[in-house]
Amino acid sequence: MKLEETDRLEAFSDGVLAVIITIMAFNVKPPAGASAAALGGVLPRILVYVLSFVIVGIYWNNHHHMLHAVKHVNGPILWANTHLLFWLSLVPFATAWMGENHFAARPVALYGVVLLMAANAYYLLSRCLIHLHGKDSLLAAALGNDFKGKVSIAIYASAIALSFANRWIGFGLYWVVALIWLLPDRRIERVITE
Amino acid sequence: MKLEETDRLEAFSDGVLAVIITIMAFNVKPPAGASAAALGGVLPRILVYVLSFVIVGIYWNNHHHMLHAVKHVNGPILWANTHLLFWLSLVPFATAWMGENHFAARPVALYGVVLLMAANAYYLLSRCLIHLHGKDSLLAAALGNDFKGKVSIAIYASAIALSFANRWIGFGLYWVVALIWLLPDRRIERVITE
Amino acid sequence: MKLEETDRLEAFSDGVLAVIITIMAFNVKPPAGASAAALGGVLPRILVYVLSFVIVGIYWNNHHHMLHAVKHVNGPILWANTHLLFWLSLVPFATAWMGENHFAARPVALYGVVLLMAANAYYLLSRCLIHLHGKDSLLAAALGNDFKGKVSIAIYASAIALSFANRWIGFGLYWVVALIWLLPDRRIERVITE
Amino acid sequence: MKLEETDRLEAFSDGVLAVIITIMAFNVKPPAGASAAALGGVLPRILVYVLSFVIVGIYWNNHHHMLHAVKHVNGPILWANTHLLFWLSLVPFATAWMGENHFAARPVALYGVVLLMAANAYYLLSRCLIHLHGKDSLLAAALGNDFKGKVSIAIYASAIALSFANRWIGFGLYWVVALIWLLPDRRIERVITE
Repeated sequence: MKLEETDRLEAFSDGVLAVIITIMAFNVKPPAGASAAALGGVLPRILVYVLSFVIVGIYWNNHHHMLHAVKHVNGPILWANTHLLFWLSLVPFATAWMGENHFAARPVALYGVVLLMAANAYYLLSRCLIHLHGKDSLLAAALGNDFKGKVSIAIYASAIALSFANRWIGFGLYWVVALIWLLPDRRIERVITE
Repeated sequence: MKLEETDRLEAFSDGVLAVIITIMAFNVKPPAGASAAALGGVLPRILVYVLSFVIVGIYWNNHHHMLHAVKHVNGPILWANTHLLFWLSLVPFATAWMGENHFAARPVALYGVVLLMAANAYYLLSRCLIHLHGKDSLLAAALGNDFKGKVSIAIYASAIALSFANRWIGFGLYWVVALIWLLPDRRIERVITE
Repeated sequence: MKLEETDRLEAFSDGVLAVIITIMAFNVKPPAGASAAALGGVLPRILVYVLSFVIVGIYWNNHHHMLHAVKHVNGPILWANTHLLFWLSLVPFATAWMGENHFAARPVALYGVVLLMAANAYYLLSRCLIHLHGKDSLLAAALGNDFKGKVSIAIYASAIALSFANRWIGFGLYWVVALIWLLPDRRIERVITE
Repeated sequence: MKLEETDRLEAFSDGVLAVIITIMAFNVKPPAGASAAALGGVLPRILVYVLSFVIVGIYWNNHHHMLHAVKHVNGPILWANTHLLFWLSLVPFATAWMGENHFAARPVALYGVVLLMAANAYYLLSRCLIHLHGKDSLLAAALGNDFKGKVSIAIYASAIALSFANRWIGFGLYWVVALIWLLPDRRIERVITE
């Protein structure tokens, strides 16, 4: 038996996302010494890791749901997916830079730029999929007008600008987007069940 | 042919666990110099690596068995699984900190905290799966009252506290839990065979 | 149900390519300090990373298409594939050396050597596949005379030599090859659809 | 559709082997400076990497063939496989130690110890598989008396001892074993085809 093309697309994406997550954990280097202060010094990095882990987890989750409703892939879709993986592959870099500089304004803003580009790439991928499957497809119905996706992009853009005013606003807004998505998104599940 | 959703959940989990294992091995840095003393200096880290390898291997094994009896997944299950992967992704960090500090009390206790949280996350995942499949399902029968899982959590909690009295008690108790699980768990296999 | 042998070949290749991509991203170390100058210092490495990411992405894409048209594998094919993965596994090394030395002539040439060997290995793999499936097979028809593959090899060979005259010519030619492949290759898709 | 248990065993093994290969490549750090001498200084590590790559490639290849003839797995088989992965996960460590110390006797011997243990683990795994499938199974017929496996173990044991007399003998013998396996092993293929 031969797997579908979508299965290999998912497998490759899963592989990249799995390594991204583990590389980020690997970047949280154990502190020198066994004191509580040493452990405390690692806390900012752990805090950033939690955020990045949640964000990559959300992408895996949404990607999983979206691809499950997909029947065909073509060249543009493969590249739209690769494009998404490119921006997600920069998340460990942005995470490490932000964690090492204790949330200085510029790293916080750059982190937002990477998330903004990834969100755009995800939106682009969903449009390529709908283009192939048709506006009347299950997938198009399930994604709807993609309100959450558009709101996320708007919040990320604001967060980047506001990071230079107050970095904690930027960092806080990244959490806001994560929480928007953590609320279970029953759109696709509901349409498929119906 | 299209894979089941459970297949992708397993594939992603396998990817993360595979990278975790290899990252831990990568953290066992080769010593400077080729002397026997240099190699001896790495022994504590190798010892810790063996323990962590066995623990992650047990998780893969149990996860494999549990998911094999699963027929459906939903949003909460995906997130319960991601939550488990989060705590397991911190195992390399805790392993490295304990190995580098030659089993100082605090790193030994932190290692236990990570294992305790992972054990809790696994228990939570099994409850989510039973909730979806029903109390009369094959899965619920196979897991039973999860005696081993509850005992593990109790031992981990004790080990964390006892690490501050004597770190070797903590380290020894982690091995006790590992050995409890290494004894073949025929529960699921038996029920399925029947 | 049992997967085809080709599925496992693809899965292993996907795993290696996924880790290669993420390792290259990991090699782009965050700069010391949060200044714009610090970020600017990382730009050459990011530029090289983009090129290597695109190249590995093209390999995944082409590999995916080629293997999708494959029905059987044998020993020589498994080793031709492993041989290809070997040269691709050296891409992060060549990428890092070129990025760290700001495009000095020798690292730029070595990068080309690795790409040349990978292109040769890919060509060899395609010949092994055609040899097994026959000259009248769908696969042979789809690959045709492999014009792009031969042109790539010629350009890489030229780029290596020209790197010592002017390193930017070499670096530019690597981009030329990447762009040749980024133009969608509808050969295989077309033949299969017909 | 649900994958077989053997599929997940292969997927997990593939993931670990893929990361092992790429981690070893990652350990070949680019030299400081762009001179030919700098590149020459990395040659010993590249030479060792080639050997380790070939060895892991052989394991993947043989594992792939063996598991393809397998129909069932049980608890002992899962653990025999995990045990094999443990020893293979130490290959990057042994590779790095040998490469960094320019083939000093002790690292060369340790490299052999890891290979010996991995070969033993592979033999053990094949016995567990034959035990489950029966002595009259396709798998048992295909593996036969496992002449190559036994010869490999004998050569590795000799190489470890001889490394202390002359390290190049040890290193040479590791290549001998690799070449024995690189010669195509048609045993399993032949029996299956018949």
